[in-house]
Amino acid sequence: ISQSFCIFLLLLPLRESEMNPKRCAACKYLRRRCPKDCIFSPYFPPNDPEKFACIHRIYGAGSVSKMLQQLPVQTRAEAVDSLCFEAKCRVEDPVYGCVGIIYLLQTQIQKAENLLAKTQAEIAVAQTKHSQTPKFDYM
Amino acid sequence: ISQSFCIFLLLLPLRESEMNPKRCAACKYLRRRCPKDCIFSPYFPPNDPEKFACIHRIYGAGSVSKMLQQLPVQTRAEAVDSLCFEAKCRVEDPVYGCVGIIYLLQTQIQKAENLLAKTQAEIAVAQTKHSQTPKFDYM
Repeated sequence: ISQSFCIFLLLLPLRESEMNPKRCAACKYLRRRCPKDCIFSPYFPPNDPEKFACIHRIYGAGSVSKMLQQLPVQTRAEAVDSLCFEAKCRVEDPVYGCVGIIYLLQTQIQKAENLLAKTQAEIAVAQTKHSQTPKFDYM
Repeated sequence: ISQSFCIFLLLLPLRESEMNPKRCAACKYLRRRCPKDCIFSPYFPPNDPEKFACIHRIYGAGSVSKMLQQLPVQTRAEAVDSLCFEAKCRVEDPVYGCVGIIYLLQTQIQKAENLLAKTQAEIAVAQTKHSQTPKFDYM
């Protein structure tokens, strides 16, 4: 009886009531049981395994778990989304990651601002010409 | 003699000739000897400990080492720079990281594009008015 009780105690952390009935994508990936209070579970549903695979490849499960634990619960979903975006960018572009997107956007802003300055200069010229043209009021 | 020889063999991986005379910031941080072929050494000089600390906090040494090993040597410096930038952004803004910068830049582009469209529309109006104004050539 004493031995059975010991086995029962050992199995306590694995009780079904403390586990999610369906493992989240992170626990599936990490080949472990998914506890009810799993930090990944709300953000990595089982039907999207790629989301965790990507984030794990770049940051590792430990880093992501640590980062999430340091955040208030209401900001974690947004944090996971931005981490996933960065991880995807890094997988697609291992040298520049999403910093490559920042460079591109900065170039785009520079171009838009140059075009704006040019257009505003054109307006100024057009307005000067317009004001120099004699006006006749027929009314 | 045999025992001394064994100790000599054991110490072989730690020979001074195979080590960097000055440990790089990564090896200092990880409290380990810095081998001559250290993957971090060219990008983490000993005088900038913060650079590695930041990248380690977000990605972990293992992930960074793995990412660098998968890259051609000539692209590694750029990869380290972009990883450091992303890590710094994530430390400063743990929810959005450098994705926050992307949002900001996209908003800035949107504003610049709206202003450009407005300015171009103004030009079109000004040109139409200008073409409708009777012209008198005094020459």
